[in-house]
Amino acid sequence: MKRILLGAFEINQVNLTSQGLWAHPEQQTYRYKDLDYWLDLARLLERGYFDFLFLADSYGYPHLRGETPDVTFEQAVEVPNNDPMLLIPALASVTSDLHFAVTTSTTFEEPYANARRFATLDHLTKGRIGWNVVTTSSAVVSELFGRPQLAHDKRYARARDFLDLSYKLFEGSWEEGSVVVDKAARLYADPSRVHPIKHEGPYFTSHGYFDSEPSPQRTPVIVQAGTSSTGRAFAAANAEIVFLHGKDSEMLRGQVSDIRTAAESAGRGRDAIKAISGLSVVTGPSRSAADEKLEEYLEWVNPDAARAYYAMMTGIDLAALDPDASFSTVSTDGGKSHVERYRDTTVREASADFLRRGMRELILVGTPAEVADQIAGIVSDTDLDGFNYTPFVSPGSYADLVDSVVPELQRMGLVRTKHTRDTFRQRLFGAGSHLPGTHPGSLFRTDTRLAETSA
Amino acid sequence: MKRILLGAFEINQVNLTSQGLWAHPEQQTYRYKDLDYWLDLARLLERGYFDFLFLADSYGYPHLRGETPDVTFEQAVEVPNNDPMLLIPALASVTSDLHFAVTTSTTFEEPYANARRFATLDHLTKGRIGWNVVTTSSAVVSELFGRPQLAHDKRYARARDFLDLSYKLFEGSWEEGSVVVDKAARLYADPSRVHPIKHEGPYFTSHGYFDSEPSPQRTPVIVQAGTSSTGRAFAAANAEIVFLHGKDSEMLRGQVSDIRTAAESAGRGRDAIKAISGLSVVTGPSRSAADEKLEEYLEWVNPDAARAYYAMMTGIDLAALDPDASFSTVSTDGGKSHVERYRDTTVREASADFLRRGMRELILVGTPAEVADQIAGIVSDTDLDGFNYTPFVSPGSYADLVDSVVPELQRMGLVRTKHTRDTFRQRLFGAGSHLPGTHPGSLFRTDTRLAETSA
Repeated sequence: MKRILLGAFEINQVNLTSQGLWAHPEQQTYRYKDLDYWLDLARLLERGYFDFLFLADSYGYPHLRGETPDVTFEQAVEVPNNDPMLLIPALASVTSDLHFAVTTSTTFEEPYANARRFATLDHLTKGRIGWNVVTTSSAVVSELFGRPQLAHDKRYARARDFLDLSYKLFEGSWEEGSVVVDKAARLYADPSRVHPIKHEGPYFTSHGYFDSEPSPQRTPVIVQAGTSSTGRAFAAANAEIVFLHGKDSEMLRGQVSDIRTAAESAGRGRDAIKAISGLSVVTGPSRSAADEKLEEYLEWVNPDAARAYYAMMTGIDLAALDPDASFSTVSTDGGKSHVERYRDTTVREASADFLRRGMRELILVGTPAEVADQIAGIVSDTDLDGFNYTPFVSPGSYADLVDSVVPELQRMGLVRTKHTRDTFRQRLFGAGSHLPGTHPGSLFRTDTRLAETSA
Repeated sequence: MKRILLGAFEINQVNLTSQGLWAHPEQQTYRYKDLDYWLDLARLLERGYFDFLFLADSYGYPHLRGETPDVTFEQAVEVPNNDPMLLIPALASVTSDLHFAVTTSTTFEEPYANARRFATLDHLTKGRIGWNVVTTSSAVVSELFGRPQLAHDKRYARARDFLDLSYKLFEGSWEEGSVVVDKAARLYADPSRVHPIKHEGPYFTSHGYFDSEPSPQRTPVIVQAGTSSTGRAFAAANAEIVFLHGKDSEMLRGQVSDIRTAAESAGRGRDAIKAISGLSVVTGPSRSAADEKLEEYLEWVNPDAARAYYAMMTGIDLAALDPDASFSTVSTDGGKSHVERYRDTTVREASADFLRRGMRELILVGTPAEVADQIAGIVSDTDLDGFNYTPFVSPGSYADLVDSVVPELQRMGLVRTKHTRDTFRQRLFGAGSHLPGTHPGSLFRTDTRLAETSA
């Protein structure tokens, strides 16, 4: 059985995806502003052999029918939310082999500043960083940033330009070996091996040197979760981890196969992208105890808050639709096709399912051994490479997994049993820390040595 | 004798201001990419009763006569440099009463994203954050970011607009008491007390709610170091700490008096701004031993690197000027008047002084008792409120101060003797954590209660 990647899906706010669950007595997310909450969580994840902490992010909040409904603030639907990137250095300081992926938007960040932030993180964490690249479609964020909203295809064109410039900065400015740090010779770096980059793209222009010297991975591990056809093509070309959106093995199997084929078509090989899915787990001493526990969690979901959240994530106002209509007739922004899962249902059925599940993908319920068996079955059925574990309550749902399910998965050979100090990219592919020569980012290197060392 | 503020002046790179000193055997700054280096430094500063760590920052590097000279990379003149903000959460996690000020540029950052970063830091540090507001004049950075260079006055107009928008976000969106977090009532925040802001300024537009709930200080402590007349007016209106640039008591006395008068004219009171100056200290068992130690440090300065650095900081290429000309005839960008200190000297004399001093202000040399006496004398002569301590070698110069001079200053009542958990603003003014009602940022509040609580 192949080893799976175990990620934790988090966000720097109080509701993860089940709107209203912040108020559950066991829920500690109201402490999200407190570093100690996060430090303890990172220690728990490392103890539980998690491979990475995935930090989602978006500016903005629900806005529908011309206003932000009161329930947004009453139930803290995506707001308040704080910057998640700033958590990472502190979490890195109390862990040694937990990796981190964090989201930034190519639509709203500055590429040069963004690249320096990721290079700094890669240095400070010793190569434990991934970048979840998103293109933000939200009209609310456009209003907050005072910028015109970009159409779907333009967002991706901008994202491609953003990545090309980022690759040049990460890969093309400082040759391998350019940094000498020879105190005796009073030589810090060899100027003949540091080069100004020149980028004149449709959205971004940049001339000059990258401020940061090469970090362990140079380019952070590229993560992507886009579901539109444009998003999938972007992922096939660039991503090293793709976050899929399916609620069962059947949906996921097709998506995994598609992304492997697309990576192959992009000249990168079928195993160049790790495919992961969301996973929630509720365990108990018996199946019925676990079922009861899940139902108890779901009682905390606030339907109005869930609908506001759904509208924010998909652009679809469920309350404004005919409950008996087929969901397949609902039109949405091309970037929001995680509604795909409801294609063959009515609006009523889709709404009911969403109120239970939020944006969760797989939800597994049972005894620890049952859940471990289900996970093994899903991996076998779908060829998934791993999961983004999405807790109901934090840290309780993590502790449940770490203390009961992870040991089972370790026995089955699905989860590693030893801590290893490596870079994120080494963890994923077992090879070098740098982008492989088949990745488009490697094209921007000025020296061939780097491609050799990462082969 | 009034208590002084003790800050540490740092930068996330290997040369602080003496270009070439990175190679000194005692210099540990080559470890700047290593979190442990910074964690140890923060612990040392807290042990030594430092009030804050000041993190300077600028994108870019020297560029003169159309090129970046080789010495830039050979001696690491301002490059490589990493993002300093990302250090803070980790440093906050190992300290409890050390405050932090970090630089971001109103010319190159996005106000909404910048405000969310500072709010997040203020939350994570429990109110220990200051923002050093700079307007970046560098043509190099304009090229890196692919933007037209702004003239001096436009940079400050943009900075004013940036601050107005920031104040609205920090102060005007969430009323005091709007965040309830009542699990039993299932109520996170009271929507009637959260308001969208509306900003339509000459440079920035923003409509909507601030993503972050109110942090302990809301607006971070505003720090400013501009030296032009526009910069001074900006500081008089906004700053709570001003970083002055003078090399002796006489220069500093005038600047302190000027800023107090300007603050008073701005309706804020003579004590509304803390005036600090750079300070370097070299101690030894005797005056002559200390003198020798200083000379030994200065031997490591690389003249070409120092000149490249001077050109970057001031726009003046010393090597291209007539050595016998009066320095007062040298023209420079209005934002770079720290050349004022050389007004009455020749170019040759100015160059010689700069090669020794870099951008350092006061340099005090002697036994610990002698240095402590000099500091007391300077405070008495100038009415300065404190210092930004600028080490020659790190952490050695900090350890020298902490272990020998600080105890003397404590005996004299100049430095506190107890650790106190407070916010940065409380530390500075002994009052509330929020902006006082006389600060222009307070005008953007929607509720008057906040002004009352901070009076």
